[in-house]
Amino acid sequence: MDYPNDQAPGAPVRSGIPEHGRIPKYYAVKARIAALLEELGEGGVIPTERDLAERYDVARETVRQAVRELVLEGRLRRRGRGTVVAGPKLTQPLSLASYTEGVRRQGRTPGRNLVTLDRFPCPDALAAETGLNRGEPVWHLERVLLADEERVGLESTYVAVGRVPRLDTDFDPDSSFYAYLTTRGIAFGDADERIETVLATPREALLIGTPPALPMLLIHRISRDVDGGPLERVRSLYRGDRFSFTTRLSGTTRLSG
Amino acid sequence: MDYPNDQAPGAPVRSGIPEHGRIPKYYAVKARIAALLEELGEGGVIPTERDLAERYDVARETVRQAVRELVLEGRLRRRGRGTVVAGPKLTQPLSLASYTEGVRRQGRTPGRNLVTLDRFPCPDALAAETGLNRGEPVWHLERVLLADEERVGLESTYVAVGRVPRLDTDFDPDSSFYAYLTTRGIAFGDADERIETVLATPREALLIGTPPALPMLLIHRISRDVDGGPLERVRSLYRGDRFSFTTRLSGTTRLSG
Repeated sequence: MDYPNDQAPGAPVRSGIPEHGRIPKYYAVKARIAALLEELGEGGVIPTERDLAERYDVARETVRQAVRELVLEGRLRRRGRGTVVAGPKLTQPLSLASYTEGVRRQGRTPGRNLVTLDRFPCPDALAAETGLNRGEPVWHLERVLLADEERVGLESTYVAVGRVPRLDTDFDPDSSFYAYLTTRGIAFGDADERIETVLATPREALLIGTPPALPMLLIHRISRDVDGGPLERVRSLYRGDRFSFTTRLSGTTRLSG
Repeated sequence: MDYPNDQAPGAPVRSGIPEHGRIPKYYAVKARIAALLEELGEGGVIPTERDLAERYDVARETVRQAVRELVLEGRLRRRGRGTVVAGPKLTQPLSLASYTEGVRRQGRTPGRNLVTLDRFPCPDALAAETGLNRGEPVWHLERVLLADEERVGLESTYVAVGRVPRLDTDFDPDSSFYAYLTTRGIAFGDADERIETVLATPREALLIGTPPALPMLLIHRISRDVDGGPLERVRSLYRGDRFSFTTRLSGTTRLSG
């Protein structure tokens, strides 16, 4: 069988065209704009909606839908009044290494802006998830994550006040929380993570500066110390158009099924 | 500080209401419908758009936007003409265990429907990614993934014909490909995975039976045998409203940064 050599295995088969051959008009336009992006390269400015509508002989609303999807997918980015070709997604390892380190490895400058630091009695749901005691004082540290000063995510950390009693005075919220734990002699044992895709809420969209309802990657983490005691509960929300996550799987896992 | 006890740490802070206090009208309706879901429980039928619009004294379009987001997030599902409360997302481990096994562990019946089985010379991109030889014959096995007969994903596997020459005659496409490899004495060494969120293409939406542009979880896998030789390249697309993925992280990873 003849197979097109430009069919990358990570790309959708046949560029996503249904077998019955009826291609939605906006999707045909999207495929043509996607080809244009390859030619322009990262940072290249695409023509205006009006120009694209004329070039492809379609309505401006058709172009708008195509461009909107390419933006949601992180292949195009709005910049001022124009729209430019985006760079590849940042890839973070799923590991107990910190956000800070993952971003640095990719040659970007990590940063964090404090949104919230408050304390409250551990609620039922958090106690049940982590093994903390119901009602014991807990910190909630909420920070916007930055890469090269661009807002890319939002991280909420819940940790017992008993673990880090001076978090509000000792800790620089623009620095790595994990580095801070290390200086206090606290070491991670292990953690369970769960990753899903969700839509940004209006508050989250506002804090991160994304369009509302942009698909996000949400990572839930519950980590324990080396003795198995509860350490932290983290909720990390990353722009789905800017991030992907990697992991290495080992074959020691039994194959079956 | 007073902290609401119903604030689950996995939920957005303050139910996603921006600090400045201006809540988009549809979002306020969404929060009220979300509370209603808790009362109804899985499988419960929600009132019609018209009834909800009357109850909350808003336009039907406002209700429609709220319901649409709850559907995209997998909290509501369309069933016939009605809309019902969805169950929790399926959670699959990120591991070399197969899809089949992961679904069985959750008490669901796995299945697969063959879409494509063809062979073609290994294209440049696939050769570069996997270490296969450019031009050597490669199988492409594409299957719709089922859980309890519901279509939940789409999986493309690329494997050298030299590894499994009789794949087209020996292999039952409704069964586990990994179990098939095991019977042929092929064992996995390790694999690299990358997970991201993408929008379903029209073809994929048609095959999986999802609304177009539903956020999906896409997992890229490149696996090697115990000698480090190239084994397969897999592109697995899962409904973002129906799946989440879990992993266990070990503290042997150095903490720094």
